[in-house]
Amino acid sequence: MRHLMSPLDFSVEELDTLLDLAQDIEAHPEKYAHACEGKKLATLFYEPSTRTRLSHEAAMLNLGGSIMGFSSADSSSAAKGESVSDTIRTISCYADICAMRHPKEGAPMVACQHSSIPVINAGDGGHQHPTQTLTDLLTIRNLKGRLGNMTIGLCGDLKFGRTVHSLINALVRYDGIRFILISPEELRLPEYIRHDVLDRNNIPYEEVVRLEDAMPDLDILYMTRVQKERFFNEEDYVRMKDFYILDRAKMKLAPEDMYVLHPLPRVNEIAVEVDDDPRAAYFRQVQYGVYVRMALILTLLDIHVD
Amino acid sequence: MRHLMSPLDFSVEELDTLLDLAQDIEAHPEKYAHACEGKKLATLFYEPSTRTRLSHEAAMLNLGGSIMGFSSADSSSAAKGESVSDTIRTISCYADICAMRHPKEGAPMVACQHSSIPVINAGDGGHQHPTQTLTDLLTIRNLKGRLGNMTIGLCGDLKFGRTVHSLINALVRYDGIRFILISPEELRLPEYIRHDVLDRNNIPYEEVVRLEDAMPDLDILYMTRVQKERFFNEEDYVRMKDFYILDRAKMKLAPEDMYVLHPLPRVNEIAVEVDDDPRAAYFRQVQYGVYVRMALILTLLDIHVD
Amino acid sequence: MRHLMSPLDFSVEELDTLLDLAQDIEAHPEKYAHACEGKKLATLFYEPSTRTRLSHEAAMLNLGGSIMGFSSADSSSAAKGESVSDTIRTISCYADICAMRHPKEGAPMVACQHSSIPVINAGDGGHQHPTQTLTDLLTIRNLKGRLGNMTIGLCGDLKFGRTVHSLINALVRYDGIRFILISPEELRLPEYIRHDVLDRNNIPYEEVVRLEDAMPDLDILYMTRVQKERFFNEEDYVRMKDFYILDRAKMKLAPEDMYVLHPLPRVNEIAVEVDDDPRAAYFRQVQYGVYVRMALILTLLDIHVD
Repeated sequence: MRHLMSPLDFSVEELDTLLDLAQDIEAHPEKYAHACEGKKLATLFYEPSTRTRLSHEAAMLNLGGSIMGFSSADSSSAAKGESVSDTIRTISCYADICAMRHPKEGAPMVACQHSSIPVINAGDGGHQHPTQTLTDLLTIRNLKGRLGNMTIGLCGDLKFGRTVHSLINALVRYDGIRFILISPEELRLPEYIRHDVLDRNNIPYEEVVRLEDAMPDLDILYMTRVQKERFFNEEDYVRMKDFYILDRAKMKLAPEDMYVLHPLPRVNEIAVEVDDDPRAAYFRQVQYGVYVRMALILTLLDIHVD
Repeated sequence: MRHLMSPLDFSVEELDTLLDLAQDIEAHPEKYAHACEGKKLATLFYEPSTRTRLSHEAAMLNLGGSIMGFSSADSSSAAKGESVSDTIRTISCYADICAMRHPKEGAPMVACQHSSIPVINAGDGGHQHPTQTLTDLLTIRNLKGRLGNMTIGLCGDLKFGRTVHSLINALVRYDGIRFILISPEELRLPEYIRHDVLDRNNIPYEEVVRLEDAMPDLDILYMTRVQKERFFNEEDYVRMKDFYILDRAKMKLAPEDMYVLHPLPRVNEIAVEVDDDPRAAYFRQVQYGVYVRMALILTLLDIHVD
Repeated sequence: MRHLMSPLDFSVEELDTLLDLAQDIEAHPEKYAHACEGKKLATLFYEPSTRTRLSHEAAMLNLGGSIMGFSSADSSSAAKGESVSDTIRTISCYADICAMRHPKEGAPMVACQHSSIPVINAGDGGHQHPTQTLTDLLTIRNLKGRLGNMTIGLCGDLKFGRTVHSLINALVRYDGIRFILISPEELRLPEYIRHDVLDRNNIPYEEVVRLEDAMPDLDILYMTRVQKERFFNEEDYVRMKDFYILDRAKMKLAPEDMYVLHPLPRVNEIAVEVDDDPRAAYFRQVQYGVYVRMALILTLLDIHVD
């Protein structure tokens, strides 16, 4: 049985197959409308995340399956001191597949070791959020027609940003990838990723402080939020915050075929005026997130549709 | 695409069609049991309201569709500072139609401006609660066989009562409507409704302080709760509270074919002894609420059943 | 119309029929996969209990039905002061059957008196939890091939343990039942059960303080948790706590064909090392809980499958 713990669980070839399936689902949704009939997805959300939960649920419902679960730890047996391994053994009797979100790193890994149903890691603390990465990959591939040979700007909090780290790890497996890392000094990509992932894979990258400086070179701009409290001091924050807000003026500097992604929710790091730009792809990304999760559920349940 | 923001969104003719559909659903539920197969309703409840949420969910399930969503803001992305317009654009990727309950007036209106799926306003602060009004209209029409030419008593908190204001606005569009407004002085119907809605439409009305005085004349009695804290002082409350409690004795004063409605939940404004009176229609009203929401979902999704 | 308030609502014959049905469901789940199509289960959980809620939901989904409801009182109308009897009359308009969990003893009984749909008591305070008892009975019958003629060890908190009391009441109706009651002095089975239930039915029983002493004689060991705060003093707790922790060493004292049950969640009263023992049946018990609830839903809805 297979689980999804990290985006790297899939080889590049397996990932290609998964993304092909997602693309076929997008093109022919009706073919898949009954693929999971009689199957149940349990969403085990030990911390709330409406977007991620509903995306999994929409995926399962689109496949004709059913959904059940809980949306916060208060309403779960965790409050009574039950271990994750006991919970998953119980859930294995109720559902055919589950998606687990947990504040503690590694909890989904513990779960999958005791589970008799496939477990999807739907986010574990600051550690992994693999279905977001699958979503990002499908979005990039669908928009640009490829996953290699491109320059990707990663903007915002590169120090703590789980989605950014995960995306880097996934993209370095493709040829011709180049990164522009756009962040304040305080929030630079950690040394262990620059060294162990980028340098070791001979991935070219550049670090810049201002978003404007990166725009002209990009194929993809991946935006994330910069939280005020991450800055060393108020003065730095005031001086720099506008560097990381994408607006119409900055969009003018970018190529015609560059696309903007964002894992959402956004707060103010992308001005609302950008939403109408055809290159703003963050809401299409949400839709791709449903398709890729449909493909994932089918893959983990080993269900094939002709 | 259509949304439901206010009961007045539908013309009298459109409303007739909707209520006819609801009546056909009541008569032939099996005809509609698969009408929404493959469709998903998202319930976005930023404040809890079990009754309203479950009523929408029951409606969608009766039509063969699926349900998803959240039942309080704690478990939603709102906590992370996401705007309603971003949330609805996301939900548009997950569901085919949604029902939104929000503590802030106007939030569903903002949502429908950015939505690519129909939005049902399931209550926004003290502002609107249009599906309750549709329920009330269907109930009155089914019980009395008509919507015009009748005397309607509105009893309780007429000052703050959202459902009462909404019902008045809906009913003044029919001929021969007359209101008896039954409330303490402190909780009279606001001047702007008396003047702008009733007077301007030449709707006859009368204001009385005691429920007993109104009973003999009524075709419909619409009860609402009078909260103690709305009174100017304890003395007034003690003196008057019994005026607004419907009991068997007061029911004796009413015509044989008068019906009692209540938006529920009730606390003690209708004595339990009234429940067995055949004229007590408030639980039948709940059932009509499901039928009318089924009709509404079909109408907004533009699904027609032969 | 039938409800389930107590395990004793069913006669021994009716229970046999129910357990036979559960066994047939286990053997031929596909026969029942559409038995409840178009039917809705409402889970009304006034206090959280994920395990019990999901078990009922899994049961209904396995039968092809739909689920709706709430998982804690915060998101229900109870907060607005609605009575249980009004809530159930409302829910009767939404669903075809419901499962109610309530912190107050007797609440489901009030509900069933005003309901027009079958009500399943899914636990009311310290009073009853009949679907757990049905689960226990099915598990014992499936593992041992019979319900009578056996020695059952009940271990842990026998004073406050609702599931234990309920199981005793259910088992004394079978021939050849003998109990070994294993608990600290402070947590002995209450006098009213020993006298009114055991003695009156001429059921042989023995009381022991140490689990070791009981092991060799048992056909079934039913474990429950001993909470520290139930002990008279810290000293007693420290002295005795290990008596009530089942581990591999104690399992060596038990017969080959003895099975261990537990209503779950467990904390540490069964060491994890016991999980791999083929006699550890507490996770199989969870699975039986789904089958027996499927049988119960079919029985209460009077749905028959050929």
